[in-house]
Amino acid sequence: MLRRLKILLEPDREEKCHYNMASLFHGMLMERVNPSYAGYLHESGYKPFSQFVSGAVGNGLWMWTVSFLTEQAWQEVGRPLLDDKAGEFILKDKDIRLTVREKRLEPPVSYGELTRKYYLEEQPRRAIKITFLTPCSFKSAGRYAILPDLALIYQSLMNRFDAFADEFSLRSTDALEHLARFTYIRRYDLRSTRYHLEGVKIPSFIGKLELAVNGPETMAGLANLLFAFGQWAGIGIKTALGMGAVQIE
Amino acid sequence: MLRRLKILLEPDREEKCHYNMASLFHGMLMERVNPSYAGYLHESGYKPFSQFVSGAVGNGLWMWTVSFLTEQAWQEVGRPLLDDKAGEFILKDKDIRLTVREKRLEPPVSYGELTRKYYLEEQPRRAIKITFLTPCSFKSAGRYAILPDLALIYQSLMNRFDAFADEFSLRSTDALEHLARFTYIRRYDLRSTRYHLEGVKIPSFIGKLELAVNGPETMAGLANLLFAFGQWAGIGIKTALGMGAVQIE
Repeated sequence: MLRRLKILLEPDREEKCHYNMASLFHGMLMERVNPSYAGYLHESGYKPFSQFVSGAVGNGLWMWTVSFLTEQAWQEVGRPLLDDKAGEFILKDKDIRLTVREKRLEPPVSYGELTRKYYLEEQPRRAIKITFLTPCSFKSAGRYAILPDLALIYQSLMNRFDAFADEFSLRSTDALEHLARFTYIRRYDLRSTRYHLEGVKIPSFIGKLELAVNGPETMAGLANLLFAFGQWAGIGIKTALGMGAVQIE
Repeated sequence: MLRRLKILLEPDREEKCHYNMASLFHGMLMERVNPSYAGYLHESGYKPFSQFVSGAVGNGLWMWTVSFLTEQAWQEVGRPLLDDKAGEFILKDKDIRLTVREKRLEPPVSYGELTRKYYLEEQPRRAIKITFLTPCSFKSAGRYAILPDLALIYQSLMNRFDAFADEFSLRSTDALEHLARFTYIRRYDLRSTRYHLEGVKIPSFIGKLELAVNGPETMAGLANLLFAFGQWAGIGIKTALGMGAVQIE
């Protein structure tokens, strides 16, 4: 199951919400998680959740979005957050108290539903518009890749889909090559940026990207499925720490 | 010799100068050129001049910048423009009369001077900041490339340098490979756009790009030389028609 919880927060002083703050929110999440599961998360490569913060809701409120890619992640990380009685969060490093104004739990979506909806669609959409809401980056050949490399984008999505969708496997080197070959960048408005994380500045990019997928319909369906999944999983590195959050249109 | 002529123009009605208008200016240029030379230009692959228009000077004036890469291009295309007695230009398609307010002829720079200044410099700059003032594009494998591909950028500059710098030749497949390998994109703020040209919309990009050049000093010197030259030559396709104008910092 894929789940998403959005928490609207009101800061106790006027302060703009910055996406870099997500690492502090990650710390708060981990405080609420059972230590053995936190240990498991720490050891695992692909994290079964992603989260980011934004001030996009306007009216001075902050929005914290946490997405869950497995049932266990929901039970271990999501539920404590939903049940939390305190009704507030403290950003210690910033000395900001955040009062919970609303918790929005979206209807869960199963991997089967997602696959049927996108992969098995008869006339899949050929245009995919991606907004990178927070900085996105990839590690490739020991370097950070700050241009939107289609092979890296698809690989990131496919690897995480396969890691968490129990009943389905999409992994295929052939499919990956075909996806990258049949997709082209139709439009973009992107800039490089740095994501501040524990004293390190990670080279990354943010902005808008519009893709067109040619080739057979299964190829377009697969691309749509992967990007739809990306709305929960994020794209690229450090998605549990606030990077790579995307919105697909 | 590399020469540049800037002409400040005042339109007879309030109208924003758009870079797409440069193709009309190209038409006006060709009207003033000896037909046999115009024919030669039409046949030749790399044009020995580049030009573009911008409204960047503010106060409602337009700026038309024409750069010349050979002595002949200066004599045939530049001189008639400088000597032009009329003092005005008519953009027929737009029904706009442009009064000449000023002609600025910059001091000429020889290829030898440019080469000594940049290629033979002992401590060449490692950072190169490029502003694409007008849309830039490349044709590669039958497609337009709208991401800043370093190999295509360097190839475009090297080919034009070699086509017009009589005494010097930089062309080398090895150097091109090394340049692309030792250069990386440090920062960017780019968006895709379309350059309107004779009813065709050419996919292209515009914005800022910052490069860092690693490797031996000769490599950095060569990169600096090529981009300095790019300020006269432009980068990519259709530089005589208003595309690919750059400013280097």
